[in-house]
Amino acid sequence: MKTQVVIIGAGPSGLLLGQLLHNAGISNIVLERQTPEHVLGRIRAGVLESGTVDLLREAGVSERMDAEGLVHEGVEFLVDGKRIPVPLKELTGGKTVMVYGQTEVTHDLMDARRATDTVSMYGVSDVQLFDVKSDSPYVTFEKQGETYRIDCDYIAGCDGFHGVSRKAIPAEITQEFERVYPFGWLGLLSDTPPVNHELIYAHHERGFVLCSQRSLTRSRYYLQVPLSDKVEAWPDERFWGELKQRLPQELVDKLVTGHSLEKSIAPLRSYVVEPMQYGKLFLVGDAAHIVPPTGAKGLNLAASDVNYLYRILKKVYHEGRTDLLETYSPMALRRVWKGERFSWFMTNLLHDFEDMSAFDRKMQQADREYYMASRAGLTTIAENYVGLDFESVE
Amino acid sequence: MKTQVVIIGAGPSGLLLGQLLHNAGISNIVLERQTPEHVLGRIRAGVLESGTVDLLREAGVSERMDAEGLVHEGVEFLVDGKRIPVPLKELTGGKTVMVYGQTEVTHDLMDARRATDTVSMYGVSDVQLFDVKSDSPYVTFEKQGETYRIDCDYIAGCDGFHGVSRKAIPAEITQEFERVYPFGWLGLLSDTPPVNHELIYAHHERGFVLCSQRSLTRSRYYLQVPLSDKVEAWPDERFWGELKQRLPQELVDKLVTGHSLEKSIAPLRSYVVEPMQYGKLFLVGDAAHIVPPTGAKGLNLAASDVNYLYRILKKVYHEGRTDLLETYSPMALRRVWKGERFSWFMTNLLHDFEDMSAFDRKMQQADREYYMASRAGLTTIAENYVGLDFESVE
Repeated sequence: MKTQVVIIGAGPSGLLLGQLLHNAGISNIVLERQTPEHVLGRIRAGVLESGTVDLLREAGVSERMDAEGLVHEGVEFLVDGKRIPVPLKELTGGKTVMVYGQTEVTHDLMDARRATDTVSMYGVSDVQLFDVKSDSPYVTFEKQGETYRIDCDYIAGCDGFHGVSRKAIPAEITQEFERVYPFGWLGLLSDTPPVNHELIYAHHERGFVLCSQRSLTRSRYYLQVPLSDKVEAWPDERFWGELKQRLPQELVDKLVTGHSLEKSIAPLRSYVVEPMQYGKLFLVGDAAHIVPPTGAKGLNLAASDVNYLYRILKKVYHEGRTDLLETYSPMALRRVWKGERFSWFMTNLLHDFEDMSAFDRKMQQADREYYMASRAGLTTIAENYVGLDFESVE
Repeated sequence: MKTQVVIIGAGPSGLLLGQLLHNAGISNIVLERQTPEHVLGRIRAGVLESGTVDLLREAGVSERMDAEGLVHEGVEFLVDGKRIPVPLKELTGGKTVMVYGQTEVTHDLMDARRATDTVSMYGVSDVQLFDVKSDSPYVTFEKQGETYRIDCDYIAGCDGFHGVSRKAIPAEITQEFERVYPFGWLGLLSDTPPVNHELIYAHHERGFVLCSQRSLTRSRYYLQVPLSDKVEAWPDERFWGELKQRLPQELVDKLVTGHSLEKSIAPLRSYVVEPMQYGKLFLVGDAAHIVPPTGAKGLNLAASDVNYLYRILKKVYHEGRTDLLETYSPMALRRVWKGERFSWFMTNLLHDFEDMSAFDRKMQQADREYYMASRAGLTTIAENYVGLDFESVE
């Protein structure tokens, strides 16, 4: 087989890149280890930056999102017992975020791809990348006992943190940056109305809470828990009981509890590999970087990479601008590091860190008090939350 | 002897409090261990917040400051090779800072006090505080072999970090918060014109630099140096040579070097003791808190304490509002912690920390890039630099 761009991974970033390239007349094949159902079963982020929303619209996959997604003009903090509304739209000169689950985004992208003549191969195994530093790279893999080979111009590694793409870059030319946080997030999904119209990011001495949502009838709550905790130790009743302990009475009174559709514990990690390009291979999203979920930057940073890689490849194929290829990694990383910074800042601001010194604990509290009370401070949070501007590719 | 308020320490905070109280008809005696010449010999801060300037004016000691002090409407950062002007006045809705040395402030306060009929006793030793929890506290001390006793209503401990006042509070009712930074500031004072109209806070891989000034003809430069360095290892030539290595060529070309009038190495420390009140004793300034000098908050936080204590004591004596006395510590501390936060933030942002992880180093760089490129980010710096508003005492 032969195509212009092989995309490894059929998560939202791989599918979005494929759709954008296809619309631009650039052929691509998507390879995915799992089944479509398995990909759709992953419960992930639910908040889209305005730039991510624009990119989904540009890709022509926004019809359902625009109909069903919830535009949020604000977000709320709950800090030291006080509720602090953050008017995102007002503070950012008109920007908002869209509450629309990653599962739904993936669903829409799969539907859109099925409506095209592009090739997507699910359930493939043993994906290997060859000659990525040459002008004729290729990818091999197995499916149902048969071995395939695809020759291509470029490879987009959209296969996540545990994927093969990043490992195809020799370790001696990469540098990894990492921080592992000493706690996890226990998430519970339920078909219950959200406790509050806006998302609530709460600091509490018992640990961080996020009151999130996927729709007007589906809620997603998170509790900071010790990393050593197992999900089995958290039956629904214990989850709701702990959540109530970390919320003020006025919210407890409004909280509707219910059976969990999904419940899991996720560790929190900051991770970046540099560079994000090696020859004809380009890393996209979680393959190159992980953020802790505080601030909802994971999917949005993947979309940020897609934005840059798509615009570069379009200019490469349409205008012969191969000089742009080497700008991908530094340009993508500049925005990635800003997202890493914001996720790290929000995580540090709102979680309980057992090993903090008394002085550092006071600084954390002073940070909360300052940023929550200052319009400039809230604006720094708001402008990062809705998403910083993209650089233009030219 | 008998007075209403005994003020321990004749630094700027003690003298300013004494002047304000005197103007309000509240009698006070200032005690100082050193000679006036020794106090004036201390080379310290040079940047006054707008609130500090207002307080000096309110005290009636601003004539020379208003004539000779330099109003600065901006400050400059030098980060990753780029010069970033911070238009303080524009970003804060009209606030500015005043460049006027602490030595000059102290000089003006001493002159003003000498023009009154108040008592100031220099060269006293063995100051001891008694019965501070009672309604009749008193202070004893020795001078030229004689022992004195002053009965009073209140005691203001303005005697700095090493003074006796803080030690008069039983350790079991206090909590101390501290961070010691792993480097020092080597400062050089010279009668040379400043290299730049605005102060420059510079991050450099060889270490932090501050290009400060006391007047149009007197410069003060600081270099981050290892804590183990001795000032003897830094003859003037080495200082100027190192400074030039940390500045861009356009500034090196403008730099006028000269003989050092003073040169010293100061450690950097964050420190706060809580509470700042014990019975009739009130801690003011360095007696209760220390900040690293990055951001010029030391003298200004002392003035902040003076502001609150003066307004409270005025209402106590004029309106019988003894209920306000217990508001001093929490109110002063709220502003102190904000100043501690800003000093810690600026120190973390601009210094080289040898023991940082690679990830933390990237976060420090991302912080610099974000705050320098965002108007909201620069505004958070500007509004703290010119000084956050005081709470009103009522």
